Amino acid sequence: MSELSRKRSADPAAIEMLNLAERKQYETIWDRLEKQQPQCGYGQLGTCCRLCTMGPCRINPFGEEPTHGVCGATADTIVARNLARMAAVGSSSHSDHGRGAALLLKEVAIGKNKDYRITDVEKLKAVATRLGINTAGRSYLEIASDVADVAINCFGKQDEEPIIFLQKYMPKKRIERLKEIETMLFEKTGKKMGLLPRGIDREAVDILHRTHFGCDADPLSLMMQTVRCALSDGWAGSLIATEIQDILFGTPTIKTVKANLGVLDAEYVNIIIHGHEPILSEKVVEIALSEEMQEAARKVGAKGVNVAGLCCTGNELLMRQGVGIAGNELHSELAIMTGAVEAMVVDVQCIYPSLAKLSNCFHTQFITTNEQAAIPGAIHIQFDEEKANDIARKIVQAGIDAFPNRDKSKVYIPSNISNAIVGFSVEEILKILGGSVAPLVDAIAKGSIKGVAGIVGCNNVKVKQDLYHQELTKELIKRDILVIGTGCWAIGAAKAGLMDISAQGLAGEGLKAVCKALDIPPVLHMGSCVDCSRMLVLAGALAEHLDVDISDLPLVGSAPEWMTEKAVAIGTYFVGSGVPVHLWPAPPILGGPEVTKILTEGAKELLGGYFFIEEGPEATAKRMEEIILEKRTALGI
Amino acid sequence: MSELSRKRSADPAAIEMLNLAERKQYETIWDRLEKQQPQCGYGQLGTCCRLCTMGPCRINPFGEEPTHGVCGATADTIVARNLARMAAVGSSSHSDHGRGAALLLKEVAIGKNKDYRITDVEKLKAVATRLGINTAGRSYLEIASDVADVAINCFGKQDEEPIIFLQKYMPKKRIERLKEIETMLFEKTGKKMGLLPRGIDREAVDILHRTHFGCDADPLSLMMQTVRCALSDGWAGSLIATEIQDILFGTPTIKTVKANLGVLDAEYVNIIIHGHEPILSEKVVEIALSEEMQEAARKVGAKGVNVAGLCCTGNELLMRQGVGIAGNELHSELAIMTGAVEAMVVDVQCIYPSLAKLSNCFHTQFITTNEQAAIPGAIHIQFDEEKANDIARKIVQAGIDAFPNRDKSKVYIPSNISNAIVGFSVEEILKILGGSVAPLVDAIAKGSIKGVAGIVGCNNVKVKQDLYHQELTKELIKRDILVIGTGCWAIGAAKAGLMDISAQGLAGEGLKAVCKALDIPPVLHMGSCVDCSRMLVLAGALAEHLDVDISDLPLVGSAPEWMTEKAVAIGTYFVGSGVPVHLWPAPPILGGPEVTKILTEGAKELLGGYFFIEEGPEATAKRMEEIILEKRTALGI
Repeated sequence: MSELSRKRSADPAAIEMLNLAERKQYETIWDRLEKQQPQCGYGQLGTCCRLCTMGPCRINPFGEEPTHGVCGATADTIVARNLARMAAVGSSSHSDHGRGAALLLKEVAIGKNKDYRITDVEKLKAVATRLGINTAGRSYLEIASDVADVAINCFGKQDEEPIIFLQKYMPKKRIERLKEIETMLFEKTGKKMGLLPRGIDREAVDILHRTHFGCDADPLSLMMQTVRCALSDGWAGSLIATEIQDILFGTPTIKTVKANLGVLDAEYVNIIIHGHEPILSEKVVEIALSEEMQEAARKVGAKGVNVAGLCCTGNELLMRQGVGIAGNELHSELAIMTGAVEAMVVDVQCIYPSLAKLSNCFHTQFITTNEQAAIPGAIHIQFDEEKANDIARKIVQAGIDAFPNRDKSKVYIPSNISNAIVGFSVEEILKILGGSVAPLVDAIAKGSIKGVAGIVGCNNVKVKQDLYHQELTKELIKRDILVIGTGCWAIGAAKAGLMDISAQGLAGEGLKAVCKALDIPPVLHMGSCVDCSRMLVLAGALAEHLDVDISDLPLVGSAPEWMTEKAVAIGTYFVGSGVPVHLWPAPPILGGPEVTKILTEGAKELLGGYFFIEEGPEATAKRMEEIILEKRTALGI
Repeated sequence: MSELSRKRSADPAAIEMLNLAERKQYETIWDRLEKQQPQCGYGQLGTCCRLCTMGPCRINPFGEEPTHGVCGATADTIVARNLARMAAVGSSSHSDHGRGAALLLKEVAIGKNKDYRITDVEKLKAVATRLGINTAGRSYLEIASDVADVAINCFGKQDEEPIIFLQKYMPKKRIERLKEIETMLFEKTGKKMGLLPRGIDREAVDILHRTHFGCDADPLSLMMQTVRCALSDGWAGSLIATEIQDILFGTPTIKTVKANLGVLDAEYVNIIIHGHEPILSEKVVEIALSEEMQEAARKVGAKGVNVAGLCCTGNELLMRQGVGIAGNELHSELAIMTGAVEAMVVDVQCIYPSLAKLSNCFHTQFITTNEQAAIPGAIHIQFDEEKANDIARKIVQAGIDAFPNRDKSKVYIPSNISNAIVGFSVEEILKILGGSVAPLVDAIAKGSIKGVAGIVGCNNVKVKQDLYHQELTKELIKRDILVIGTGCWAIGAAKAGLMDISAQGLAGEGLKAVCKALDIPPVLHMGSCVDCSRMLVLAGALAEHLDVDISDLPLVGSAPEWMTEKAVAIGTYFVGSGVPVHLWPAPPILGGPEVTKILTEGAKELLGGYFFIEEGPEATAKRMEEIILEKRTALGI
């Protein structure tokens, strides 16, 4: 087994595939990272500015010239503007996802779209009630239409009031705290700095405007707008995506799924669905598993059609449909290299453009579907919600048609496969707990569970794949800290067996006892990265139950292998919601000492939530535990 | 006179001030540009990617490794994503400006804001009529409320229809052409690519989403969305700003103003207003010129208060109020160095952060006012439209209070001053022409005017200040091409005397005769950079008069000293509207050959409008003339 492969990933299936890649000379993302060395230090420090064509400007990190950009911007101004834009992009990506769900719900509600239907009427009514929409004596379609209207309004409204979803979901104490901070900042600085988002799209556009040449140069002002924009993501854009997808496709329930490349089956037509939005993938699964398509697959010599997920579309499918997950983001090239994938169907976000070229080494149909994610070299089958059934059929058929072209000599599927208990929506957690967060609060109060850690985020090719995810998770549960999370972390944990019931054995005595009593693993899969909103809702429920602010709770977050701009938005909305958040790798802010101070010490004082950087799972777990203990002490437990 | 200063600017006042700066060792933007040398070539070619923390990635411009980003992105994907984001920022900056105007109009209309009023009821009715709003028998406040609602709706609406302002202002033939291109692209590529904007904010957010890690990697698809977003700026965001500001503050009329640093008066309290939005500056002018404030100034030993504009807030004031203009963007530091400026009051956009530090060398109060543009080291007086009178009074008083602190030994005001005839709104142009574009069309048809060139954009410290602006303008009018334009170009032309009636003497015989007959200069000031919309409206009027598409007209644009992301948006919406646009310096696209081809040859075929790069005023004028002649030939004139 190659040293190199073992340096690149902690996942045995990945190591096998990386060995294969080395033998066959398939280029991987790890190879391209090497070719990019050395990477630009200015970019990594955040002190490269490309906002106007008088630049690019770079600030000397050692205090010598150049100390300012051409316009006079300092390192801190440059760092703050760059970071604000990252959050705006991340927030907009999630929110655009939520918009799609809201617009589809409206179409379904008014009968314009017949290919989708409302699956979870109970959730619909719960959301409507929370939003203050009358449900009594009304048809579920009427209610759905109103829910969709409220959601759609959050994207485009132009008044100064906080968006409705945030008003109805964020705990009262946190809203009050944010209002107090706004007032305090104005009194202290004379500058108007808003924290409560007015409109989802507007807050992103506001960041674009204020980061334009010659606008906002004040790190504090820039960071406060960054928090506002991110809050519009967490408490509206992403939340709308989650809530409405639950209404359309069903709220996740607990189930056991298979994880890792072993979910691919050499005797079947394998279709992998990759990306982030379930609107397409739910249809692909439905159609692929239909008798018509299974029969079509048998006709070309396969045993049938096998669908597997990848990345967060995979998370959506495993949470609701129990579809097996082939891997997280860094598995996307490796999956194609198995030679057993007839089609990789993608929607949006985190899809490497390299997949098109790599697919050409195989019979794999690499199919893009979304107007916001066309990739040169891919086969584009334009998705359209109004013709969802027909298009999904076309996509599945494309996979089946490719099966006879499979080169059996190239097929290599690692046998690795793990069991994972997944499906921990807030509703499901409450059900386990008997309908209220009280038992969880009691367990925390008694100390059997010290606190809760939410882990989120990506794979990052600069970090050994899954290692940080796995080790940090183990370190935390060992310390009686319940771990919840989403995204590529969740897939990493699932692949490592940490969501199996047997993982109870890795937990500390207190946590183990609770998990045994509830018959759950100590590591809970709460969904895709857009579903980080589920963690906010859970945190909100705990806060309201105790009548405290979220920042008082023994909660802490981590994104130990993050890499996308979405992760910047997620981290920031947790910080803005009062949760301390660990990041690794360091974000591109270290070139700006004032920005770094605002996001760490400053935010702690101001928002309760704050960022901290720590390298290594053990040091991180220790720091997270300390934070939890600090919060427990303050709560007097 | 220093060689260096003469290399830096073509403006004699600037040269004097740069000599002073050299003697006194005041740091200028030119000095900082030198300190930034050498600037990053990857950034200039557009092939530096910082969209995720697996980067930064850079593509080797010589075809060697690295040829791809870590994710597999090609140079073209990277270039296209970066450019799309630039346009999104530029569009959002203009549009946020328009949003402010629309929201204020609404407040005034419903009586919530008493500090502002509707000045131009005739324009209000004209806009309402164009938008299809009933005006008969209704109060002007009712009409204004409806106009505001239509405008506000353009920012936030979530359906798929093109935004109303675009529908009502863009010529029918152009709308049809754009629809045809959408259909053609779908038929040819199978990918859905929209060109007609659905919502102003949404199109910017769409770009943010599709440029997120792992989304759109297709240069064509990215560029089409860039055009869509830019069109939402030109035909809505910016247009709304222009139209509503005319309603609130009056449609510009022809007047003569003074231009250059000589507008400052050593015996007066000098207040310079710099930035882009007239909402603040109109109030400052109104209050500053009040007898109360003039008297307050006399009390501290000044002859009174003198207000001067700078950059595009200056353009707004000169167009409507005839306020003298101290200079364009590169004059902003130089103005402070006169030592005679008591207050520089700024709102948003193109304000160097360096101005705060430089002001500290003098008694100058550098006052920021806008929540989207706080600058460290500045005095922040938070503006609020609802308390506009009070706040404007506070700002003017701050200037007056600083007068006694002026160090007379430091005062040095260059005597340079030019006369400029300005105020060429579309309405005013039509009035000169007797109420219709017909005489202009006749002059073009006869060939006395060969065509019309619109020149826009910034100063860019990489280009000798105003040289390209002046020389290109002269070359064009010499060739009987009428020159219209906005922004920092317009100020440069005004300072150079090209808007004086005497400039008729520099025009070719045909153009000269027309200008003499109409008693106008051959170079027309159409407003601030947000007022590029006026040029679109004029182009639309010509196209509709002739029942042709804008792309058929002998029109051509240029941004010869551009530097901001707003300029990317402006250039792109002209291209999307069918106008060929010259750029200098080259935008950061040359590292992407496919993107470069799409924006030049591709756009020409597809949109009629396209970009071209040319260095040097004479070569550019020649090329612009060729394009005009080509269009004339096609029209058979």
